[in-house]
Amino acid sequence: MQSIAYPSHEASEHAERTVDAYAADTVGARLEPYRFTPKSLRPMDVEIEVTHCGICHTDLHLINNDFGLSTYPLVPGHEVVGEVVAVGSAVTELRVGQRVGVGFLAGADFTCEQCAAGRDNMCEHWEPTCLGREGGFARGMVADSRLAFPIPEAIASEHAAPLMCAGVTVFAPLLRYADGATRLGVVGIGGLGHLALQYGRALGCHVTAFTSTADKEAEAREFGAHDVVDTSDAGALAARAGSCDLLLCTVTADLPWNEYVGVLRRNGRLCLLGFPEHDVSFSAVPLVFFQRSLVSSGIGSRLEIRRMLDFSALHDIRPQVELFPMVEVNTALERLRKNEVRYRAVLVHA
Amino acid sequence: MQSIAYPSHEASEHAERTVDAYAADTVGARLEPYRFTPKSLRPMDVEIEVTHCGICHTDLHLINNDFGLSTYPLVPGHEVVGEVVAVGSAVTELRVGQRVGVGFLAGADFTCEQCAAGRDNMCEHWEPTCLGREGGFARGMVADSRLAFPIPEAIASEHAAPLMCAGVTVFAPLLRYADGATRLGVVGIGGLGHLALQYGRALGCHVTAFTSTADKEAEAREFGAHDVVDTSDAGALAARAGSCDLLLCTVTADLPWNEYVGVLRRNGRLCLLGFPEHDVSFSAVPLVFFQRSLVSSGIGSRLEIRRMLDFSALHDIRPQVELFPMVEVNTALERLRKNEVRYRAVLVHA
Repeated sequence: MQSIAYPSHEASEHAERTVDAYAADTVGARLEPYRFTPKSLRPMDVEIEVTHCGICHTDLHLINNDFGLSTYPLVPGHEVVGEVVAVGSAVTELRVGQRVGVGFLAGADFTCEQCAAGRDNMCEHWEPTCLGREGGFARGMVADSRLAFPIPEAIASEHAAPLMCAGVTVFAPLLRYADGATRLGVVGIGGLGHLALQYGRALGCHVTAFTSTADKEAEAREFGAHDVVDTSDAGALAARAGSCDLLLCTVTADLPWNEYVGVLRRNGRLCLLGFPEHDVSFSAVPLVFFQRSLVSSGIGSRLEIRRMLDFSALHDIRPQVELFPMVEVNTALERLRKNEVRYRAVLVHA
Repeated sequence: MQSIAYPSHEASEHAERTVDAYAADTVGARLEPYRFTPKSLRPMDVEIEVTHCGICHTDLHLINNDFGLSTYPLVPGHEVVGEVVAVGSAVTELRVGQRVGVGFLAGADFTCEQCAAGRDNMCEHWEPTCLGREGGFARGMVADSRLAFPIPEAIASEHAAPLMCAGVTVFAPLLRYADGATRLGVVGIGGLGHLALQYGRALGCHVTAFTSTADKEAEAREFGAHDVVDTSDAGALAARAGSCDLLLCTVTADLPWNEYVGVLRRNGRLCLLGFPEHDVSFSAVPLVFFQRSLVSSGIGSRLEIRRMLDFSALHDIRPQVELFPMVEVNTALERLRKNEVRYRAVLVHA
């Protein structure tokens, strides 16, 4: 058995290979070194040598089995950047040596109604990256080539990684719902929010940051906020009643939903992007009277990911990252649990 | 003082006139005969001799002051049809003798951003028909001519009245969100729902009725439903998981929201049209994972009302009505309170 993570593709045909990774053995466990045998390449797959992997709050949800979908050992990680080291027999769009990124979507049928409508992120037979397969907290990954995206040269790998999930998660709803006349509110200035401020500003929106962490104000303005609301002030939300066309809620905390509905202008949209612990609850009257909506968005389609990458390169939009060597993955997770990361943790493989 | 409701316009300039109506004197009160002095016409107003007025569930909300906005004596009624008997000095689009309908929107500034965007129903200075002014449970009404809509000849007045609120309330979201490929679910087969079935069918949708009243099944199919779900059956909603692109929720009952979110297909929309008594509450995970939304719609814009009237005439869409002489208004309200009306009560003036 070879213990080197990435022998040449030729060698791999003749020897059992393994991939070094970090995994949670059980629900909520600390991650430990783990070694697995990678799947063999199907015709449309590529093999990627992972160089960087961002850590998303969803990784914490998966480690904790908050969605009831996790299987263990669980190798998290769905903000993956690396180099293509082998391509399947039918792959025409990627080549060995190319730098690519992979996000939360690992598989789609590309034929169902959702896919045909361009919403492959909503494919009826979708497969997520870290469920039932190993994610990017590993030296290597086998991925569907149609869901591995070339990274524009202008974007450093450590910046590209968080774009693959956090980036597209906030960019996709902005593409769908915002334009230059939009008064945008970004609720929660963290991994997603600090990117949403940048995208919103570059799209020409009027951008307001809503944060309960007053000391983020200066940075929020640097990221692009025209205005910052300290939500720890009682009455701060009421003072902004009817001020936003679109609120991107990026937090996993339970929010005072009626107050945020009140922040919406008539016909405004509150877009849920995170998973609050408890039910979302609000009064119907101020919603219906003013034709407001609670929409949601899940990652983004292939087209939205490509546009997000091009837009990020063009406008020099990049996450502010804290880099951790892979061996310090538990330190990084702990900082994320405590909401201490400013603003996205990225694991760097040796 | 003249006690005749509608003297000629000429006479009205020389005598104090009164209008006979029915009003609630206090919160929740039985309606009693009431007489008021009508406002004088502003340049863009018309005076209408009311012949028919539908009864909407919102009238019950207003009588009960459920929104905290009611003032008493309160003259309900916002599904008004009648004849123009006088026009203000600047009115060019309506003439005396014309048959018109007035809905819930009594005033708009026609200049704010919402109006400029064609959403006059969301006008920042909107005025509703039965709040702070008398509604259509009266022999006469002064209305803004821009919010009084000519009724197509093909539509009988008793059918036109409920279209002014119930009709446009379900037609507007169908115009916005449905097309011929839409799998539409209509939740609640009452005043709104039985019209939604007809509009959905005429728009080419696949139409499913969701009702807890099993004996409405045959009528629901006559109104246009391809399929009827008896929601009083345990497991009926789970069996329809992922089946609808758009759910129009027309009821004022508290629904099992998570189950209805589950009835939505990926990217599907649940549209709230009524005002459930308690907060709407749901888990974020199945919403966000499948990019579902809770949208809402409030009545409809002027353009949507005009299109609704034309569409109703073209497709012979009409409410099934129970007619009551004005003097029996309390009987009609009582039937509505008990959900016994099939399917819309309409008051007919003597």
